[in-house]
Amino acid sequence: MKGEPLAAIVSVGMTRFGKLPGFSVRELFSLAFKEALERCPELDPKRDIQAIFVGNMAGEGWEHQGHWGPICADWVGLVPRASTRFENACASSGVAFRCAVMAIKSGLIDVALVGGVEKMTHRTTAESTEFLALASDHPFEQWHGLTFPGLYALMAVAHMHKYGTTEEQLGLVAVKAHKYGALNPKAHFQKPVTLEKVLSSRVIAWPLKLYDCCPISDGAACAILTKPEIAKRFTDTPVYVIGTGQGCDYIGLYEREDLTSLKSTKEAARQAYEMAGIEDPIKDLDVIEVHDCFTISEVIAYEDLGLCRKGEGGKMIEEGRTDLHGDIPVNVSGGLKAKGHPVGATGAAQIYELFLQLTGEAERGRQVPDAEVGLAHNLGGSGATCVIHVLRRG
Amino acid sequence: MKGEPLAAIVSVGMTRFGKLPGFSVRELFSLAFKEALERCPELDPKRDIQAIFVGNMAGEGWEHQGHWGPICADWVGLVPRASTRFENACASSGVAFRCAVMAIKSGLIDVALVGGVEKMTHRTTAESTEFLALASDHPFEQWHGLTFPGLYALMAVAHMHKYGTTEEQLGLVAVKAHKYGALNPKAHFQKPVTLEKVLSSRVIAWPLKLYDCCPISDGAACAILTKPEIAKRFTDTPVYVIGTGQGCDYIGLYEREDLTSLKSTKEAARQAYEMAGIEDPIKDLDVIEVHDCFTISEVIAYEDLGLCRKGEGGKMIEEGRTDLHGDIPVNVSGGLKAKGHPVGATGAAQIYELFLQLTGEAERGRQVPDAEVGLAHNLGGSGATCVIHVLRRG
Repeated sequence: MKGEPLAAIVSVGMTRFGKLPGFSVRELFSLAFKEALERCPELDPKRDIQAIFVGNMAGEGWEHQGHWGPICADWVGLVPRASTRFENACASSGVAFRCAVMAIKSGLIDVALVGGVEKMTHRTTAESTEFLALASDHPFEQWHGLTFPGLYALMAVAHMHKYGTTEEQLGLVAVKAHKYGALNPKAHFQKPVTLEKVLSSRVIAWPLKLYDCCPISDGAACAILTKPEIAKRFTDTPVYVIGTGQGCDYIGLYEREDLTSLKSTKEAARQAYEMAGIEDPIKDLDVIEVHDCFTISEVIAYEDLGLCRKGEGGKMIEEGRTDLHGDIPVNVSGGLKAKGHPVGATGAAQIYELFLQLTGEAERGRQVPDAEVGLAHNLGGSGATCVIHVLRRG
Repeated sequence: MKGEPLAAIVSVGMTRFGKLPGFSVRELFSLAFKEALERCPELDPKRDIQAIFVGNMAGEGWEHQGHWGPICADWVGLVPRASTRFENACASSGVAFRCAVMAIKSGLIDVALVGGVEKMTHRTTAESTEFLALASDHPFEQWHGLTFPGLYALMAVAHMHKYGTTEEQLGLVAVKAHKYGALNPKAHFQKPVTLEKVLSSRVIAWPLKLYDCCPISDGAACAILTKPEIAKRFTDTPVYVIGTGQGCDYIGLYEREDLTSLKSTKEAARQAYEMAGIEDPIKDLDVIEVHDCFTISEVIAYEDLGLCRKGEGGKMIEEGRTDLHGDIPVNVSGGLKAKGHPVGATGAAQIYELFLQLTGEAERGRQVPDAEVGLAHNLGGSGATCVIHVLRRG
């Protein structure tokens, strides 16, 4: 049945995103969990939680550490529960969430802890750039010195060339992100910026300038997932997962037919919309979190999600249609751009924001009035992975 | 209902394990898939396969490459299908298999490709040792120079001290492994060895000698998983998954109450036995693959799986009870020890062997006569992860 709950979110937790010196991955994960516990006094973790699903992109690089499943289980006091680590680049906790949803739906797990975490800022930018590059193709991209700003710049140039998208339009994505980041007490950046400042910031990979790029951040986020039938044991205000979709595209840009669109997003949206019964995303959705690692990524997401026609993403941001009070609010959390992007945590942080929005808890005036249905769009790499979830308030 | 099929395996594929120069991860994965296709002509991958689950431990180290989900999807021709990468150290494809089972059971996926792959032999032993160490605790183990032979040596010493287990008994695990490796055309080592040779091989980390340690290998393995109801569309001889369990232990040995036993195995076995209706593992199981990365690991697995009483694992191997014609044949594939251990592929390779055994296809006289029910026991790291599956022939 369309729109039927697959699983219920009964609590969420998240650290502040930003530079968090002195904390390691295991500590950040347990801090996010602590908030989820505080928000849900009915949950007895040792009694209730049967499995842990954790996304982390490249702790191997940043901390010389893999095998995060058992480490995270230990630091939240849940040994000997099953604990699994997922890596799909920046979609690591998005795919962890999806597998947790399927685990709940399978009937094998009643209550799961699902989250994501990354600790990045203690290493140099050059080191982080290298670890992030692991998500692109080694023989055909990394090897030739192509890094992520370069990959997204190629997409931006193609979009500008094909559809007349402008640097100003891209810049407006950043302006919107910082406007809402200022309303998010957990955001990495909490200060508005002007379009002039964005456009005059230094070029990273043309046409992308410093303010077109999300920052390198530390942080963790998590959610407690249960079977819908038992959700009310834990909270009066569960949020239901009513759609899930995942798709992929070729990892190397050179293999793609079109640089201005992602097969992964289209495939994931097709699945999730079908499952959730979304026919007109603008009408049927109230709030959206998209993966805006670079400003061009948000513009392409508008189009691939069907919020506007192909090529009109630039116009959409220009007309303010994705503002808090526009047709469909997008990234009122500040997005990756201003909220920050601890890569393995981002998918879970989108779920965190939607939980707040759908339970009416978003702070500082960024609450979307009476939001009922939300969508999270999480990319990995240059979009070779996309995972989408549709949530509905209980 | 106990023993009810959760999912059905309708085909499997595996490369030879060993030194496979000139192949990369993506190529090995596609070669394993090719065998799975050839074995199952009824499968039309583009039409049927909806999702890919792939285990890889540390391609970040060996190939400077992560984000394996979309890469593997591309190389088997399945873009834009959902493709997810799992990392639980040497249990990476075991947990991928478990998540695929839950995905099938959830009803959201009808047919899945699940596999694992690792390419290791092109780097130096020192490099491989470092990449493998990612699975142990960075601050409290790696940092102090403790590597995997050392970790398992600590467990072996504790077992010898507490239960009187001898170097000869450990050596007999290697002798058995090589005996059966010689019967496995895909094994890394296909030559029997004598106990004298094992005992006189050079010490790696006392009491573990060269022949107590599995090799560094390249390889890939995979399985095609479907809903039990549709399995007969693809094959007349499906193998059903009737139990799955996963548990964890503290990653650092220093945190464990007991070095001679793994909480992870006990927890995973409890879940899987309960689900599959296994009351007496010796009587109810016909063939077992255990994770013998070091000989001591097999001895401890006998005990934790309940094949013998605690402390009697050494006696069990000595008495030949786990030989092909003993009470319960263990690792007649040659095990990790002789078949080889491309870490991310091992969980899937255990499933491959059990599929052969349960469909009567095991080569060169290592077939367990009339095997009906099998168990795969896959560890990650020094046992901080354990994932267990119970399979039954259709």
